[in-house]
Amino acid sequence: MAEKQEQLQLLKSRIADFKAQKLTLDMTRGKPGTTQLDLGNGLLTCVNETNYRARDGIDTRNYGILDGLPQAKELFSQYMGVTPEEIIIGGNSSLNMMYDTFAQLMTYGSSTGGDPWSSRKKKFLCPVPGYDRHFTICEHFGIRMINIDMNPDGPDMETIEEYVKSDEDIVGMWCVPRYSNPTGYTCSAETVERLAVMPTKCKDFRIFWDDAYAVHFLGSGRAPLADLLTACKKAGNPERVFIFASTSKVSFPGAGIAMMASAGQNPAWLKKRLFAQTIGPDKINMLRHVIFFKNMEGILRHMEKHARIIGLKFQAVLDILSAELDGKDMAAWTRPQGGYFISLNTRNNCARKVISMAGELGVKLTPAGSTFPYKNDPLDRNIRIAPTFPDMEDLKKAAEVLAVCIQYVSLAQAG
Amino acid sequence: MAEKQEQLQLLKSRIADFKAQKLTLDMTRGKPGTTQLDLGNGLLTCVNETNYRARDGIDTRNYGILDGLPQAKELFSQYMGVTPEEIIIGGNSSLNMMYDTFAQLMTYGSSTGGDPWSSRKKKFLCPVPGYDRHFTICEHFGIRMINIDMNPDGPDMETIEEYVKSDEDIVGMWCVPRYSNPTGYTCSAETVERLAVMPTKCKDFRIFWDDAYAVHFLGSGRAPLADLLTACKKAGNPERVFIFASTSKVSFPGAGIAMMASAGQNPAWLKKRLFAQTIGPDKINMLRHVIFFKNMEGILRHMEKHARIIGLKFQAVLDILSAELDGKDMAAWTRPQGGYFISLNTRNNCARKVISMAGELGVKLTPAGSTFPYKNDPLDRNIRIAPTFPDMEDLKKAAEVLAVCIQYVSLAQAG
Repeated sequence: MAEKQEQLQLLKSRIADFKAQKLTLDMTRGKPGTTQLDLGNGLLTCVNETNYRARDGIDTRNYGILDGLPQAKELFSQYMGVTPEEIIIGGNSSLNMMYDTFAQLMTYGSSTGGDPWSSRKKKFLCPVPGYDRHFTICEHFGIRMINIDMNPDGPDMETIEEYVKSDEDIVGMWCVPRYSNPTGYTCSAETVERLAVMPTKCKDFRIFWDDAYAVHFLGSGRAPLADLLTACKKAGNPERVFIFASTSKVSFPGAGIAMMASAGQNPAWLKKRLFAQTIGPDKINMLRHVIFFKNMEGILRHMEKHARIIGLKFQAVLDILSAELDGKDMAAWTRPQGGYFISLNTRNNCARKVISMAGELGVKLTPAGSTFPYKNDPLDRNIRIAPTFPDMEDLKKAAEVLAVCIQYVSLAQAG
Repeated sequence: MAEKQEQLQLLKSRIADFKAQKLTLDMTRGKPGTTQLDLGNGLLTCVNETNYRARDGIDTRNYGILDGLPQAKELFSQYMGVTPEEIIIGGNSSLNMMYDTFAQLMTYGSSTGGDPWSSRKKKFLCPVPGYDRHFTICEHFGIRMINIDMNPDGPDMETIEEYVKSDEDIVGMWCVPRYSNPTGYTCSAETVERLAVMPTKCKDFRIFWDDAYAVHFLGSGRAPLADLLTACKKAGNPERVFIFASTSKVSFPGAGIAMMASAGQNPAWLKKRLFAQTIGPDKINMLRHVIFFKNMEGILRHMEKHARIIGLKFQAVLDILSAELDGKDMAAWTRPQGGYFISLNTRNNCARKVISMAGELGVKLTPAGSTFPYKNDPLDRNIRIAPTFPDMEDLKKAAEVLAVCIQYVSLAQAG
């Protein structure tokens, strides 16, 4: 007890010291930092008055081409590992493409028939911890969400298989398959295969496969990810998966290009809606990406530059967490090889207090519960750490504040 | 009869002459021509690595700002004649914003309550001739369309008032209020006032006010249009109207910016959906528009340059139609002061034949019926002429072919 009092006293003095510094640090959002964005500045002016025409004389300034500039479809079908016929390139937001796909399923039902989702009881499987904006879409459309544990090799397949084979109301699932938000986990080949072949009671079961971090490795090369679209086709379920990606964290978050891929009857079904929705996407911005990156190697080389910048930031946070918390049994965290986040679990019932305390010390963290459906983390333990946006000095300070808050709350709670 | 045979003979020889020329001309689409697009080339490179930050240090390359860059909202709220709080700036397509607004009404019902439109019998009033893509949206959502005559002072208000006061299923109407597609007509102040105050049986009646040609005058200055949003607010119906606009035919059709405005509970209702749909629009492209045009005078000066180019094209078509058809009682056409089209009515039951015959001679015209819901022109007489895209020589040839086909079909039919 004396030792604990001593530790608490020491932590209190560090906390008082933080307070005196009047910090205002923000670790809430998975945003690239300024030096990362600078890597893409060539995009701003690479299409000019001499080269706005794409191949075959297409004037990118004018109307037309519903599903993407052919050159962009060629490059980004390699990026997605699909054929140019399977890809649709849209505006600047893959989230928007996901939302629109849900909206279409709600209003019309799927490409393979079945009642509109709006008229059905409907549930979605959600790997947790996961991406809050996915859950927002489900909530928006009144789709009941069911938590599925996210493991180092992907979502818990046994539970998923059990659910989908028996419950017709389970119409689909989310998954960030590579460097998942926030764990950084990547689905194994076995997980991918099982997702493709598993029998589902629901005839139009859909997987929303958000490959948001397709090339977002942290220094050790791109994690391989088995090809779910091909596996689904082989398994006789070509319409099961919609794959999404974007260049938001490759070029610019505000002005990248978003894309999706699908097979079987899905592409025609999607384009039918697209035709009612728009004359066509921004082709100039697609051409900017083609000219700037040139080819897949160009994209990977560019991502190595990103990795060099943010790899150091991830390492700095991991070093501080280790130095402060190793061996204390107060927290466990992931050591991602890619992506934008570190997922940290405190002891049960501590996350909310830690986040609140850090906030009082001027360090803004993603609100407690955000990584779970309905913002409800049943064990109140998950904290999403976003190391990319703050500069190095701020980041180290924020990580230190977080680690001290974890220690203080853990000790105080153990009362 | 002899005179008629002589005329037919003469027309036949002109037709044979056209055929020999193996023409391939296209007057189908309201697309700006290349010289018009060149006017905007400065947009391509005006945001560069030195000025990508907007006012208040906003990094336009990064995430954020759901409803538009503040500077863009300021400029384009003047463009739309609304306040910055009333405007939302989106991606490159105002059609997409219209579609999304319909989708939201279908799934959720309106900002002022009422059942989701998807669960209701629903009808829409459609001024005709009108814009085919508006009708496509209604068809896509299963909304029954009712034709309303478009007159020189706007849609036929007496018929509209009669419909909306008695039929609860009429949930809204389309209108292109200024330089309407394809007639070029502009709503009078009286029409606007009557739309604002008319009693509607449907509690959440909505007007989709597509001000697509807000500044698209042809040489005699911008047509004044009464302010429907203010009139609706004054009449106690602030949520009645959604106004749409875009810079598609101001800057670039493929890479302009789209916007909408609304009042009362509508902006918050729209943003609730927008939050589920996207992290935010392309702010770099908004900044390009702000830097390039600077202010409202800059936009108007730019549109004068457009007017000088397309004014000549409209005049050339009108001159040929007059020279070929005046005094023959075979066709009537509009003489627009702005917009992108000339609307021509043949004698009844002739449009389809004329368009088909012109097509055989290598002149592609907008398919018969396109300007009506369900592609059904009840009198088979309307032809939409789009003079802007072809170069002058092609355009004159195409207009001549059209005029000759009209004469031939009219004479042959009168048989």
